[in-house]
Amino acid sequence: MAINLFRPDASSLLPVDGLRLGVAQAGIKKPGRYDLLLIELAPGTEAAAVFTRNRFCAAPVTVAREHIAGGRVRALVVNTGYANAGTGEEGIRRARETCAAAARLLGCSPMQVLPFSTGVIMEPLPVERLIAGLPACAATLAPDNWLVAAEAIMTTDTVPKACSERLELAGVPVTVTGIAKGAGMIHPNLATMLGFIATDAGIARPLLERLTRQVADASFNCITVDGDTSTNDALVLMATGRAGVAFTREDQAGFDALREAVIRVARWLAQAIVRDGEGATKFITVTVEQGRDEAECRQVAYAIARSPLVKTAFFASDPNLGRILAAIGSAGVEDLDVARVHLYLGEVRVAENGGRAAGYVEAEAQRVMREPEITVRVALGRGSATATVWTCDFSYEYVKINAEYRT
Amino acid sequence: MAINLFRPDASSLLPVDGLRLGVAQAGIKKPGRYDLLLIELAPGTEAAAVFTRNRFCAAPVTVAREHIAGGRVRALVVNTGYANAGTGEEGIRRARETCAAAARLLGCSPMQVLPFSTGVIMEPLPVERLIAGLPACAATLAPDNWLVAAEAIMTTDTVPKACSERLELAGVPVTVTGIAKGAGMIHPNLATMLGFIATDAGIARPLLERLTRQVADASFNCITVDGDTSTNDALVLMATGRAGVAFTREDQAGFDALREAVIRVARWLAQAIVRDGEGATKFITVTVEQGRDEAECRQVAYAIARSPLVKTAFFASDPNLGRILAAIGSAGVEDLDVARVHLYLGEVRVAENGGRAAGYVEAEAQRVMREPEITVRVALGRGSATATVWTCDFSYEYVKINAEYRT
Repeated sequence: MAINLFRPDASSLLPVDGLRLGVAQAGIKKPGRYDLLLIELAPGTEAAAVFTRNRFCAAPVTVAREHIAGGRVRALVVNTGYANAGTGEEGIRRARETCAAAARLLGCSPMQVLPFSTGVIMEPLPVERLIAGLPACAATLAPDNWLVAAEAIMTTDTVPKACSERLELAGVPVTVTGIAKGAGMIHPNLATMLGFIATDAGIARPLLERLTRQVADASFNCITVDGDTSTNDALVLMATGRAGVAFTREDQAGFDALREAVIRVARWLAQAIVRDGEGATKFITVTVEQGRDEAECRQVAYAIARSPLVKTAFFASDPNLGRILAAIGSAGVEDLDVARVHLYLGEVRVAENGGRAAGYVEAEAQRVMREPEITVRVALGRGSATATVWTCDFSYEYVKINAEYRT
Repeated sequence: MAINLFRPDASSLLPVDGLRLGVAQAGIKKPGRYDLLLIELAPGTEAAAVFTRNRFCAAPVTVAREHIAGGRVRALVVNTGYANAGTGEEGIRRARETCAAAARLLGCSPMQVLPFSTGVIMEPLPVERLIAGLPACAATLAPDNWLVAAEAIMTTDTVPKACSERLELAGVPVTVTGIAKGAGMIHPNLATMLGFIATDAGIARPLLERLTRQVADASFNCITVDGDTSTNDALVLMATGRAGVAFTREDQAGFDALREAVIRVARWLAQAIVRDGEGATKFITVTVEQGRDEAECRQVAYAIARSPLVKTAFFASDPNLGRILAAIGSAGVEDLDVARVHLYLGEVRVAENGGRAAGYVEAEAQRVMREPEITVRVALGRGSATATVWTCDFSYEYVKINAEYRT
């Protein structure tokens, strides 16, 4: 059961002028569920994306990378069920067929379509069923389909993930709405994580590309469920420009506020992925402070957030916090002086001077461990840099879900 | 249940002349089990060790490092139940007290005693109970106590781990016998892994130190259970010299044979740790070939061996082998050409040319997946280097054991 994450109300998801979404039950893997999403972008919309760094990236990632570099995007096609990864040349061919079919329906060039897939790896994409489902997507295109769109891209997700922000820039109301999916194979540099975020503000392409990287680093690149990096991850930012306010430079008035709004949406979606992490029962925020630089703070934070021993202790609500010290010590910070490290669980000071803190009372830590949302704070005593990552615990259910994924 | 690993026969464990072992039920954590081991070394014995690289190393590791650098070792004291790690200055004091107490019993200097601990982290070592148990250890010192010694150092191990080799060097019979413990927090650069290996051959100190590193790299540094690196790991090699054959140089006749024998013992013990991995149901050998260098082969092998998704698929006997491709792709080999990568499961060719192999039949992979011992072989198509690591699958039981470790 997801941690403090609930099905959003459809009315809370604000349409983004210039963008329409259509879905279909294409029976790609299983019948009776939405499994295909078409997003149509009005002419003039700018889009930018970041993709997985996995060398075995999926065929749709290869094709989407090529197409987005080519010019203006007019549509996105997203299927669940099959990842079309580890499928060689035939996989590329099928991703291209998908684009061609969507282009015919919408009257644009196949190069203007980005394909995305999520699901099982190394099995052929049933592209005929996908293409057969596209007309139904086109027929249902509407600006207020965000919730069903979020449903159509789910795999092991238990809750559709979508949220909106509204802000005012130079007196003009601007909307930011996004959806995401992902629950396993989640690790920095994305995961079987798909995120699609749109705004009706206008953002010039180079600025939008920079913003996409900043947003990814502040959200989806700060989460881990199981330390695995997927073949299919992608985050796409789309700016339709229909709101009547447009940005070309970072120092333009209002851009900071827009960036913060996009980051808030992205961060909410990224945290929603962790809250819905496979088998998760606890949402854990790991903050590492007083590092020499952000990189070493992230390194220590991920060493804690990835440790199966730490994660099973959280699952059991067992303050076996020495495991956190062990994770810090093995994070690879070679000249770490453990005598200067402080560890806090919530407000409880757990460790100092290389050992248990004076005045530490296990019952207090026990109380924190029982909460569904827990903060781990580490002070390294080496500098002033900080980093935060979000993760979840490791339960029987995680093993069960992943042992039985294909059945 | 451990995979093809059985309680050794006491008679198969050969005494090493010059070394005696004594054990006690000291009630350090739980009553009614052997939990304290004393190893006494005859004068003239050389010892060398490698220790954990965890910055939060345990107090006994700090003290043992200092003592072994100081001169000739006469005794080792090993307790289970408490790791004496994350215990600050007080932990160091208690490790020193342990050495002093053993030294008084054996009539040597405290500096000649090495302390080792394994168990829960960040809780104080009950040093009074430990010291109170030492006379019973001294009273039972005998050369043929290897099996009960292996039992006395177990934590979550289900089978005591011990083995012997006998070989003839220049007409002289030489014995190598070792014990080890470990089942969780197991990862390269050791783990809550303790290994003690002795031979009655003589080996000069600098040569023994080099040998210890070579042996660790060929055995304990090639295993992973859960990717965690413990605070307490240690491997100690002891050479009593009583057999009447002694080595001072690597190129001396017979040294290669001795090294191979020690590596065989160490590798058997390291593999035994994986076979007895927490909750393990499969023993998996991951070999990566055709790399540019050994380092990148190890990197890819560990990416596979550490992946929770790969490990849960093995637990389920599900040939969801795309997960292995995903692990290879995210191993960090930046210029990997996936079109040149070949993947084999046992003798079944699974992937080639960046996708599923022509002629791959899932039923054949399924058959291999059901075996208790499985080989994964990856050819990177980049060079001629090779590396092998051993790991196990990831089961409900692993979560259970670690969620309930302290109860």
